[in-house]
Amino acid sequence: MNMNPLHQLMNPRSIATVGAGNNPMKMGTLQALSIIKDGYNGKFYPIHPREETVIGHKAYHSVFDLPEVPDLAILIVPTDQVVPLLDDFGKLGTKYAVIITGGFKERGHQGKKLEDELLKIADTYGIRFLGPNCIGIINSQISLNMTVFPHPAKPGSLGLASQSGTYVTQTLSYLRRKGIRFSKAISVGNEANIDIIDALEYLGEDPDTKAIGLYIEGISDGRRFIDVAQKITPHKPVLAQYVGGSTAGARAGMSHTGSMAGPDILYEGIFRQAGIIRVDSIEDLYDHGWALATQPGLRGKRIGVVTNSGGPGSAIANSCDAGGLDVPLFSEKLQAELKKHIPSHAASINPVDMTFDLDAQVLSVVVPETVMKSGEVDGVILHGIMSTGYLRDKYPHIRELLGGVSLEMVLNRFPPDFTRAVSLPEKYKMPLIVSSFLDREDNYTSAYQDNDIPVFDGPEKAARAMLAMLQYKNIKERPAIGQPVLPEKSPVAAAILNQAMEKGQKSLDEYTAKKFLAAYDIPITGEKLAYAVDEAVQYAVSLGFPVAVKACSAEILHKTEKGLVFLNQKNEEDVRCSFTSIQAATAEETPVLISRMVSGVREFIAGTAEYPGFGPCVLFGLGGIFAEAMQDVTFRAAPLSIAESKEMLTDLKSQALLQSFRGMPEPDHMAIAGILQKLSFIVCLHPEISEIDVNPIIISDSAPIVADALIVLTNQQ
Amino acid sequence: MNMNPLHQLMNPRSIATVGAGNNPMKMGTLQALSIIKDGYNGKFYPIHPREETVIGHKAYHSVFDLPEVPDLAILIVPTDQVVPLLDDFGKLGTKYAVIITGGFKERGHQGKKLEDELLKIADTYGIRFLGPNCIGIINSQISLNMTVFPHPAKPGSLGLASQSGTYVTQTLSYLRRKGIRFSKAISVGNEANIDIIDALEYLGEDPDTKAIGLYIEGISDGRRFIDVAQKITPHKPVLAQYVGGSTAGARAGMSHTGSMAGPDILYEGIFRQAGIIRVDSIEDLYDHGWALATQPGLRGKRIGVVTNSGGPGSAIANSCDAGGLDVPLFSEKLQAELKKHIPSHAASINPVDMTFDLDAQVLSVVVPETVMKSGEVDGVILHGIMSTGYLRDKYPHIRELLGGVSLEMVLNRFPPDFTRAVSLPEKYKMPLIVSSFLDREDNYTSAYQDNDIPVFDGPEKAARAMLAMLQYKNIKERPAIGQPVLPEKSPVAAAILNQAMEKGQKSLDEYTAKKFLAAYDIPITGEKLAYAVDEAVQYAVSLGFPVAVKACSAEILHKTEKGLVFLNQKNEEDVRCSFTSIQAATAEETPVLISRMVSGVREFIAGTAEYPGFGPCVLFGLGGIFAEAMQDVTFRAAPLSIAESKEMLTDLKSQALLQSFRGMPEPDHMAIAGILQKLSFIVCLHPEISEIDVNPIIISDSAPIVADALIVLTNQQ
Repeated sequence: MNMNPLHQLMNPRSIATVGAGNNPMKMGTLQALSIIKDGYNGKFYPIHPREETVIGHKAYHSVFDLPEVPDLAILIVPTDQVVPLLDDFGKLGTKYAVIITGGFKERGHQGKKLEDELLKIADTYGIRFLGPNCIGIINSQISLNMTVFPHPAKPGSLGLASQSGTYVTQTLSYLRRKGIRFSKAISVGNEANIDIIDALEYLGEDPDTKAIGLYIEGISDGRRFIDVAQKITPHKPVLAQYVGGSTAGARAGMSHTGSMAGPDILYEGIFRQAGIIRVDSIEDLYDHGWALATQPGLRGKRIGVVTNSGGPGSAIANSCDAGGLDVPLFSEKLQAELKKHIPSHAASINPVDMTFDLDAQVLSVVVPETVMKSGEVDGVILHGIMSTGYLRDKYPHIRELLGGVSLEMVLNRFPPDFTRAVSLPEKYKMPLIVSSFLDREDNYTSAYQDNDIPVFDGPEKAARAMLAMLQYKNIKERPAIGQPVLPEKSPVAAAILNQAMEKGQKSLDEYTAKKFLAAYDIPITGEKLAYAVDEAVQYAVSLGFPVAVKACSAEILHKTEKGLVFLNQKNEEDVRCSFTSIQAATAEETPVLISRMVSGVREFIAGTAEYPGFGPCVLFGLGGIFAEAMQDVTFRAAPLSIAESKEMLTDLKSQALLQSFRGMPEPDHMAIAGILQKLSFIVCLHPEISEIDVNPIIISDSAPIVADALIVLTNQQ
Repeated sequence: MNMNPLHQLMNPRSIATVGAGNNPMKMGTLQALSIIKDGYNGKFYPIHPREETVIGHKAYHSVFDLPEVPDLAILIVPTDQVVPLLDDFGKLGTKYAVIITGGFKERGHQGKKLEDELLKIADTYGIRFLGPNCIGIINSQISLNMTVFPHPAKPGSLGLASQSGTYVTQTLSYLRRKGIRFSKAISVGNEANIDIIDALEYLGEDPDTKAIGLYIEGISDGRRFIDVAQKITPHKPVLAQYVGGSTAGARAGMSHTGSMAGPDILYEGIFRQAGIIRVDSIEDLYDHGWALATQPGLRGKRIGVVTNSGGPGSAIANSCDAGGLDVPLFSEKLQAELKKHIPSHAASINPVDMTFDLDAQVLSVVVPETVMKSGEVDGVILHGIMSTGYLRDKYPHIRELLGGVSLEMVLNRFPPDFTRAVSLPEKYKMPLIVSSFLDREDNYTSAYQDNDIPVFDGPEKAARAMLAMLQYKNIKERPAIGQPVLPEKSPVAAAILNQAMEKGQKSLDEYTAKKFLAAYDIPITGEKLAYAVDEAVQYAVSLGFPVAVKACSAEILHKTEKGLVFLNQKNEEDVRCSFTSIQAATAEETPVLISRMVSGVREFIAGTAEYPGFGPCVLFGLGGIFAEAMQDVTFRAAPLSIAESKEMLTDLKSQALLQSFRGMPEPDHMAIAGILQKLSFIVCLHPEISEIDVNPIIISDSAPIVADALIVLTNQQ
């Protein structure tokens, strides 16, 4: 087994750093300080050309002066020094490096060349490295923090792999305030050698990481990304933020880490295929990741909402409901039980609204526990618990009334026992998410946070984190993806392509394209190609009226717009007439396709296209004349298992059209999925194809039938 | 002019409070403490049955012992004492009250009766009051805070009216950390006497309030809400969060303030009609409200992004782009100018990414000012500026290197002059929004906040606040709404309704319904009603083939499903055949409607319905068989000006169908808007109508034509 290089890189017994000195305003020094001050127990060797000691450690003048071969080298030096230094470490025998220095691929052509040199040296010596242009890593299990901001927190359970160093280090104090703690965090920079997919795989294998967050500006090996993620997501949640989907987003990413971005809607489909929960902001990446990393999984959709505040209760209920969670009305029995503990005017229905009430024990323990015990919910959201936060705030108002008792004494008069409150999720094996407008100044906020119960500063945030848990429940429970097994290449199909390529065609005509698809058992309309008007009539009669009459030539695109398509031809005269007008409008010898009309008002489109970084991808969407108005499409990377193909159907917003609808039967989902899967196989088996456009697929009764198709060939021959 | 009661209520020269004592754990005391400790300068009279002094103020044993008639009474007493106490204050001559006490409408029937009594007493004495079941008000201009949490902040410019007291008081410390300050905040509770619309109107008139936030669980007078908001929104931004749109949300609201909620999509339309910016969370209500309250308005869509951090830069660019703002590539000239000031490896394209760089002056002044001055942007988002926040955090790491210099001294070595940084928005009359992961511990965060420049703790949050500013720009610039002027009632239409009602009909048949609409010049299909087959054929010939042949009876609903509609009948036989089958399938005398077929593939629906709290509303949406699959509809409250009607068209997601599309011309927007406006007039002129369903409106070339209609009558006669 090829072990993931990060297992070694993240756990060095010794580190040599080049670029640290004794000037606290220098990046190298700031990063080295984090290593030696944040608790790392391994050996630390600063390399400095002149200094004798660096931040209290004996310094070595060159790589070759080191007393041992360090497990890991960290380079924080001017760009031109990176290549020779890595060569030195290679000679010495160091196998892992983190290259903080920037100025490579992200700076264009010159930088790209330098990055290639770096890669060559690494290959020569078998070095695996992170970066360049990254901020390093945090491994909280061994207290190793090589980033610029301090990370004094105890180990956490959220793993992060990020194409931005900012989210590994500049957010550390922000995360501390939120009570969110990393297990491991990895800044991948330009990903010259170790990429974000390696980081994802490593975090998937890391037992201390319970959920994984990804910050993505672009993926360069989409297929491997999906394969790696699909192995992880059935047992460990993965969340991702993708910011390369807009023009400005892609431009920003390119100048940042030189990453190639793709259309947002493609990534949306890829994330679904991979079983990854997509988020829209870095806050959600951290928050939802933290909820998933710390809380028992949701086993159902029923949420109990417990508050002392009507507005937040309504907001939580509304957000849960709108996102697909239920906030069920509590049974009479449960309400009666609750009423024993809450004020007489309080609401017991769910949300439980105790109204402004300072009995923290009832709000934090008695009510949530009664609700959890009832069997009527699968998770609880709690808003409004507070104690010392309010007292601190209010103390200047009440000091006199308390006879001048000190704030300290006031706070100590209320030493709650948090044991039961924080043990509820484990005890009842269901998630508890807390919302509070009070920060760690409040002892409830800090107690929950310090015991791995998420506290978010807004009721909707708590609800949305619970919705992320619901998303993960659905991902965990989705049918096994399965391994797509490519069929044999069809000799008929191969012959069709060969012939077209020999003729130098850029595409297949409709008739041939459908014959090609039929060779893989994709259902197409019954049809024949006519070269003369009598032949056309004879075919129409044999197929049965009504028929479609269309010009059929690889040279003619946009047939409909050119008036070369006649649908619903009801009799012989119709066919004669349309045949004649097609021949008149085109070169006389243009063959004419006579197809059986497929009746059905529900139309879909399918197709394939190449995307940089993802190879051939399959598209499925709403068809018909509304297709372009609705833009209701979804993507997956080929090849597809049947489970993956079926899941594409659930992505469409126009779900109603995929159910029984206005007296029409439910379309055959398996048959549609079959078409999508076969398209995915075809583009893998025949790399000569650059694009397939199947439009429309008409649902006739319940059966999908391909009524038109275009196959475009690559230009490379 | 009937003055808004809140002008007086919010500015009392003297306050009497019943319910405050000397026990600091009681609501009444906590609230009274806020009044006397937070700087209110007026007279304060506690009323207490036994105490001689209350929190240091002389107490009065009863209302009638007061030394003067207080401007305002605050009641924080058990529910059963509220009515007699208000009566006492009425007798004394007090004209304004805030009733904190709950236990009224929100507790069901009994409570509602008590609330009615309260109203009667208020009417008797001409008292105007807030509540019951509210938390009171904050008027920061006179340092009056009667809520439970302290409000020591200096006056701000964001006004809030809330159906939840939580958002007026329990968030005060949270808002302080965010640097957000209220001008006025009003908790409206059950709105028995003064409602959230009065509060909105008052805040609209208040010169200290620059933007208004509304937290809404339900609106009971929709028409007045719209009228009041429409007067404010062209010159002052109004934002709203609505949480009553889901089952659980509505249930929670009902138990909270007894408010009646309506479907989410209705409120969505009402907010658009009113020119209100809708937000989805309380954080956005505060954040976006604060940006709008403090920043110069956006004059265009071009945003400059300035950061020292690639990831946040990409995220900001992506969020801006996705929401409709431009992040334009900077000109060569501007880039050259910027390159003079930023590190050589930094990106100058926009986003400007200085990379990790601690030169705060360049990041906070030089670069943003260069960008603002350039004429290439209309607003700037700045991420990553920091100084003392990082130093505080890093100090334990660098203390030794600094030779043990104290933290205080380190912080004081960097006393930046913020003057230029915080003056940029005013100087260049464009918004500046800052994103930082550092809280007020950082001197930049606090300096920006204290100078009314918003700082949000996430790059996407800064971008989304800028998008709210873009929304407001669009609202400010939308065509003047105008006053809808109802036409004369049509005698033809009135006669049709009278006749139907005399006959006891519940609805009009299609023919009559369309005649009714035609009486208001709504374009309908050419058609005639046939009672015999020859007559049918004759009409078809005179209208011209193809025609539609349909059963026409007020008794028959769902004609299509019953097989009583024959479209596209092409000749005399077709008509004979369909006429005969209709007569066979129904009672023989059922009249048959012969209509000219309208050709056109684009179909829309329109209609009217009654919604509690909003009266008659107009609906417009995508039609055809996809209508129910797409659910693409929008609402407005009747009557509509032509500008309001036209704006409905822009709400549809299927915008492409309202433009020129696949060779078809652009539909006549004015004609569609005309139909919507006429429908809105009809329901106002004829209250006997409970529902109109116009489906479909077919776009023929560019003209909208009503092809089918149903008019349902109210059951009240």
